[in-house]
Amino acid sequence: MSPTDRAFMAHALGLGRRTMGQTWPNPSVGCVIVREGRVVGRGWTAPGGRPHAEPQALAQAGEAARGATAYVTLEPCAHHGLTPPCTDALIAAGVARVVAPFPDSDPRVFGRGFAALRAAGVAVETGVMAEEAGRDHVGFLTRVRMGRPHVTLKLAASLDGRIATATGESQWITGTGARAYVHAARAQSDAVMVGAGTVRADDPSLTARGMGVSRQPVRVVVSRLIDLPLMGQLARTARDVPVWLCHGPDAPSETRRAWQGLGAKLLPCRLSGRQLDPGSVLDALGQAGLTRIFCEGGGALAATLMQADLVDEFMGFTAGVALGAEGRPSLGALGIDRLAEAHRFALIETRAVGGDILHRWVRAD
Amino acid sequence: MSPTDRAFMAHALGLGRRTMGQTWPNPSVGCVIVREGRVVGRGWTAPGGRPHAEPQALAQAGEAARGATAYVTLEPCAHHGLTPPCTDALIAAGVARVVAPFPDSDPRVFGRGFAALRAAGVAVETGVMAEEAGRDHVGFLTRVRMGRPHVTLKLAASLDGRIATATGESQWITGTGARAYVHAARAQSDAVMVGAGTVRADDPSLTARGMGVSRQPVRVVVSRLIDLPLMGQLARTARDVPVWLCHGPDAPSETRRAWQGLGAKLLPCRLSGRQLDPGSVLDALGQAGLTRIFCEGGGALAATLMQADLVDEFMGFTAGVALGAEGRPSLGALGIDRLAEAHRFALIETRAVGGDILHRWVRAD
Ligand SMILES: NC(=O)c1ccc[n+]([C@@H]2O[C@H](COP(=O)([O-])OP(=O)(O)OC[C@H]3O[C@@H](n4cnc5c(N)ncnc54)[C@H](OP(=O)(O)O)[C@@H]3O)[C@@H](O)[C@H]2O)c1
Ligand SMILES: NC(=O)c1ccc[n+]([C@@H]2O[C@H](COP(=O)([O-])OP(=O)(O)OC[C@H]3O[C@@H](n4cnc5c(N)ncnc54)[C@H](OP(=O)(O)O)[C@@H]3O)[C@@H](O)[C@H]2O)c1
Repeated sequence: MSPTDRAFMAHALGLGRRTMGQTWPNPSVGCVIVREGRVVGRGWTAPGGRPHAEPQALAQAGEAARGATAYVTLEPCAHHGLTPPCTDALIAAGVARVVAPFPDSDPRVFGRGFAALRAAGVAVETGVMAEEAGRDHVGFLTRVRMGRPHVTLKLAASLDGRIATATGESQWITGTGARAYVHAARAQSDAVMVGAGTVRADDPSLTARGMGVSRQPVRVVVSRLIDLPLMGQLARTARDVPVWLCHGPDAPSETRRAWQGLGAKLLPCRLSGRQLDPGSVLDALGQAGLTRIFCEGGGALAATLMQADLVDEFMGFTAGVALGAEGRPSLGALGIDRLAEAHRFALIETRAVGGDILHRWVRAD
Repeated sequence: MSPTDRAFMAHALGLGRRTMGQTWPNPSVGCVIVREGRVVGRGWTAPGGRPHAEPQALAQAGEAARGATAYVTLEPCAHHGLTPPCTDALIAAGVARVVAPFPDSDPRVFGRGFAALRAAGVAVETGVMAEEAGRDHVGFLTRVRMGRPHVTLKLAASLDGRIATATGESQWITGTGARAYVHAARAQSDAVMVGAGTVRADDPSLTARGMGVSRQPVRVVVSRLIDLPLMGQLARTARDVPVWLCHGPDAPSETRRAWQGLGAKLLPCRLSGRQLDPGSVLDALGQAGLTRIFCEGGGALAATLMQADLVDEFMGFTAGVALGAEGRPSLGALGIDRLAEAHRFALIETRAVGGDILHRWVRAD
């Protein structure tokens, strides 16, 4: 793989990121068509998931696509879905070579796309920037492999790990820089998810603000009996920005109807003990098409996800403030006695964001 | 101030740091003698606080000191103490110019040293790298200004701010890199301080290991009734490495005698309610000569210090592990209801240390 291939693939990945969070259940793919070292076409999955990246890039390239190389961040589709297969479009345009990140033997990608291309005489090269592409497509790949969305748990806490004072005050522990970062992360997610306790305490709007997004993330609330304020932010805005309610089998039917009337979508889930089973919640969300969930707590929901080993990435903000042991814990009880039993995470990055620190971790194997 | 002056001052500060933690009650000063752009003498305060930096640097320079510039990281002493004044030594050696960080009007330094030098015809230039020198001398300056040592509170916690599991297990939450960093920080401190709960739970040795230090930090334990194991690490080693016990007026006299017999030093402190008054504890430690305290918790002592606004610097380690709300809190109760009442800290740095993150903060004004 040449440095040139890497550079064009990096460009394609950047294009794919443009609509990250807005293409579910489809992946956010980027495509760059290069002819004699010059970019002649660029495309990315449109908000809503269609059109795909490749036909848009090919349309821009026009006749220049003939004999060109196409850099695509995921194996082009070969099946007739709602759109004609992208492999057909690449072949018809006369593309000579396709470069993609994942090898065709990669069990994470089903792929008959490479085979179709090769059968038509198109050279296929794979394995270019696979690690980066794996990170970008982690939501899509998690859903393909496990049937559930990828989960990032974000908690903004004090130096001593508290997410609110004893009286429930949590606005604002972190500064404006961290909050802007969170809005950007929301914008790149398919959905923002919180527990019912957070909705009852804070009446949050959970939208991505100040990011100029055309398509807001779905707002997911986990509440067994849908015991949520009918006059709050979510209720008032459910027609404009989707509100999905994960509820138990025993949620009162009047409440369900009331929220449906407000425009919310209801997702029935199983119970595990007295609460909703977190695995069932994620399965329902995966079934409904979501690939990337940004969970913002609170401490009770965060603990349930952690206990069920469903936290793929942990995004922490730590603010320079001490709240003390009466404050609300960032994670509820986990039932851990010994250090050896504890869930471990591996550090990705830490840096200052405004006056706070951001630290990101992924599940350690 | 020229770049050359800054470079030589930076070198002098580096020399001063060599014995940081080993010179109390004296500051750890560095001195560089420069003649025609070449370093002809270097000195730093010896472990124990004597001899001072200047006479050692002058001795190395010998005749070359005549007409030279001396870079000193603190105003040279002008008083007859246990050693003759350094100003006399600089004047006698024929030094032409003295460069120092703090201006002579700086209220933090008492200083008749600059006046004595000027009176003898030595040029004095001040204000070179004052900020860096202020950080290095923060222990000395805090004791001069407030009569108490500077306090760094270190807490090694989980992602959710827990310093031990419910059963008290805390070894090890962080990895070897973080622990090595802590040993280095201990070595640069005059004393390591913990609450009695930590001694009872962990039986720690509290020494700086693997750092090749010739002079270990004092080990301070805060315990009203000196209710500490008489067969533990501290008791067994009190003759080799100092153990100081801050206790209340009601500590039983047999216990006091037993610990004195083991070689410990007893510091009587006032009570505030049912516990030792943290201000009184620090005053006693300042009186006894300590300038830099490295407090390693636990959560109860940390909370008392925080509540009394006695934490000057906060050093956090966060490990990629989730312990849950049953775990021991890194800070005990602080009695804070509203965010506006909380103690705020300003970030100095954050970075990865091994697989953990280090974050350092100073009290925000
Ligand atoms: N600083 C931050 O980043 C941040 C973020 C979020 C929240 N907060 C603060 O955290 C507090 C709220 O946290 P919280 O822990 O009380 O509530 P929470 O985690 O937001 O919600 C807990 C509620 O969710 C419902 N639930 C259903 N299934 C569940 C399951 N499997 N696991 C957990 N919960 C389930 C239950 O309510 P039902 O009975 O309705 O089922 C439960 O009471 C507020 O003070 C808020 O300000 C801070
Ligand atoms: N991860 C880490 O960095 C770390 C560091 C340290 C400790 N730990 C863990 O923390 C736990 C111990 O913490 P802890 O909070 O129980 O105990 P602690 O803070 O170490 O000690 C508290 C004890 O100190 C004495 N004390 C006297 N005056 C005090 C005052 N003004 N404020 C507070 N305490 C005062 C009291 O005992 P008397 O009755 O004797 O006066 C009190 O019970 C252990 O599980 C240990 O493993 C973890």
